[in-house]
Amino acid sequence: MVAIARSNRLRRTPFSQGVEEAGVSAYSIYNRMLLPAMFESLAADCEHLKQHVQVWDVACERQISVKGPDAAKLMALLTPRDLSKMADDQCYYVPMVDQNGGMLNDPVAVKHRDDHYWISIADSDLLLWVKGVAAGMGLNVSVEEPDVSPLAVQGPKADELVARVFGDVVRDIRFFRYKRMEFQGRDLVIARSGYSKQGGFEIYVDGGNIGMDLWQALFAAGQDLDVRAGGPNLIERIESGLLSYGNDMTAAHTPFDCGLGKFVNSDADYIGRAALEKSRTKGAKWQLCALEIFGDPVPTCDRHWAILMNGERIGQVTSATYSPDHKINVAIGMVQADRFAAGVDVEVETQAGRCDARLRAEFWT
Amino acid sequence: MVAIARSNRLRRTPFSQGVEEAGVSAYSIYNRMLLPAMFESLAADCEHLKQHVQVWDVACERQISVKGPDAAKLMALLTPRDLSKMADDQCYYVPMVDQNGGMLNDPVAVKHRDDHYWISIADSDLLLWVKGVAAGMGLNVSVEEPDVSPLAVQGPKADELVARVFGDVVRDIRFFRYKRMEFQGRDLVIARSGYSKQGGFEIYVDGGNIGMDLWQALFAAGQDLDVRAGGPNLIERIESGLLSYGNDMTAAHTPFDCGLGKFVNSDADYIGRAALEKSRTKGAKWQLCALEIFGDPVPTCDRHWAILMNGERIGQVTSATYSPDHKINVAIGMVQADRFAAGVDVEVETQAGRCDARLRAEFWT
Repeated sequence: MVAIARSNRLRRTPFSQGVEEAGVSAYSIYNRMLLPAMFESLAADCEHLKQHVQVWDVACERQISVKGPDAAKLMALLTPRDLSKMADDQCYYVPMVDQNGGMLNDPVAVKHRDDHYWISIADSDLLLWVKGVAAGMGLNVSVEEPDVSPLAVQGPKADELVARVFGDVVRDIRFFRYKRMEFQGRDLVIARSGYSKQGGFEIYVDGGNIGMDLWQALFAAGQDLDVRAGGPNLIERIESGLLSYGNDMTAAHTPFDCGLGKFVNSDADYIGRAALEKSRTKGAKWQLCALEIFGDPVPTCDRHWAILMNGERIGQVTSATYSPDHKINVAIGMVQADRFAAGVDVEVETQAGRCDARLRAEFWT
Repeated sequence: MVAIARSNRLRRTPFSQGVEEAGVSAYSIYNRMLLPAMFESLAADCEHLKQHVQVWDVACERQISVKGPDAAKLMALLTPRDLSKMADDQCYYVPMVDQNGGMLNDPVAVKHRDDHYWISIADSDLLLWVKGVAAGMGLNVSVEEPDVSPLAVQGPKADELVARVFGDVVRDIRFFRYKRMEFQGRDLVIARSGYSKQGGFEIYVDGGNIGMDLWQALFAAGQDLDVRAGGPNLIERIESGLLSYGNDMTAAHTPFDCGLGKFVNSDADYIGRAALEKSRTKGAKWQLCALEIFGDPVPTCDRHWAILMNGERIGQVTSATYSPDHKINVAIGMVQADRFAAGVDVEVETQAGRCDARLRAEFWT
């Protein structure tokens, strides 16, 4: 086991004290910030998540605040997704691409008003892209990272726990919608969203100084619900087919390569439009897909594993782990689009050797 | 000790196999890539570095290739430093700032020709800023991350080791200049530079596939020199006053705040010029400085430690560690410029309690 060397460069969060007290055993780094990856074990954490409720420090989902007269204009430039029908209490999954149509991030946009959005980012310094575009075009908009840190509450008992702290009105929040709820005199955006398929909320904690108070309020309210600290769980997210930017897709891939073509529907003259229109005509180069890998539990997937069809490389596995529930190794990979077919048998080359595997049309849950 | 959770998102490098075989015990993450931070111990690694020679996997110093008719124009927009006299075999330390004059990165530019530069970056996705500016302004330039991974050779025996592999001509390379040297049929940029004050080179390995061959060639040639694997060493870099972007400075600081005012000398209409001219007139807000912290070895500096003068907060320590050579804790901090004076006694608030400390005019070596 290799330790993580701590420094200010790998930022602590408003909730780090709670995470440490809960016994975090492994961190990932996400947007140069600590992201708890494991407490007891991946398997035990996963089982608990599916049965109870967890509080996740996802402060590393940093916000980009886009505010000012040109905010809507800038947002429309940044994504191939049509934002024209977005309501003021709505969250949108918005892939963002460069001039070549390559994915730069797959954030969630949170609309406050026509002249104010947050972009809740995956793992890349999208702030620099947005600032660069705004500077290059001379737009009248302020682009900055505010002191806002999401705290997720995930699991089948999430409604019950969040209702106990914020009131029953949170039960009425629809998927990818939000309400503003008061905590210690501050209005917090609470959205029905989160990086699991177990249901729950993301609370956008506006002001790090109240972070630990909210953490403690949730744990105090949820003792009988067996509330625990958790984090995005590798097993659950692969079973559920939740993509991870930087793992499963990079700037080398278009939204079409990633199965995100339905989000390419804007009429605006967004950055990358010409490239994406060409991609749509030509057809995707890659097909992102699920794989079942047979045999013993696979080692840690910390490098690309070649996917071989009749000995020829047709793609790579990007995320993989053993699933105790399905009693197989679950995986995500990219294969050449013209070679993909569900149910086809392939081989996968891991650092521990070659394994038999099968391409799948669907994820598990 | 908390482990690092490995994934493809935290990229391996062309040299990771060598680093692992050498027994890395702690990693940092830098530009979403593995950076070895410790092998035996910080103190033992530091002592060895000062006496012998080490090979460092600094592949995480990613390159941004800026190439095309508008390359020089874009470079001049990106930095307050005057690039007009830069020679074709020269490296320049080039702070880069946003419209507000805030530091976005402090990379080293490597000039190939007037229409081709590399930017060797510190820890932020500067690629996105450069691409964003180029896209926003519609410049005729290609901006991408090539498959180039620096390998540093540092320590008093670095000249001897690199000469054994590449020939005695490398001894003539001047500071922040480079020569192209052949290895396995590829021309590699070898610059006299590196993130220590012990002397040495950075070899820009162009093509990851030859990375381990070069690693092994260096180790084979240096057995009698006691060559070891290493990495930027926390003790040595603080003693030497080598700044770390993300630790010691962020986008909240101007070059003047960081003691980098001498690099603000361009006549071009670079981004942030108006803000920096205003800063220069007003005087810097912050003074980056060395501190000596008295008493027992300090804990890990993974959060900002308040610097107190007569009980009032005047700044924060951003990097600190115990120095076995100086038998004190060495530190870097930012204090309010109008409160700074060398030799002044202050207190520092660590997570382990309050310590006496003293501001210094100079670093140690």
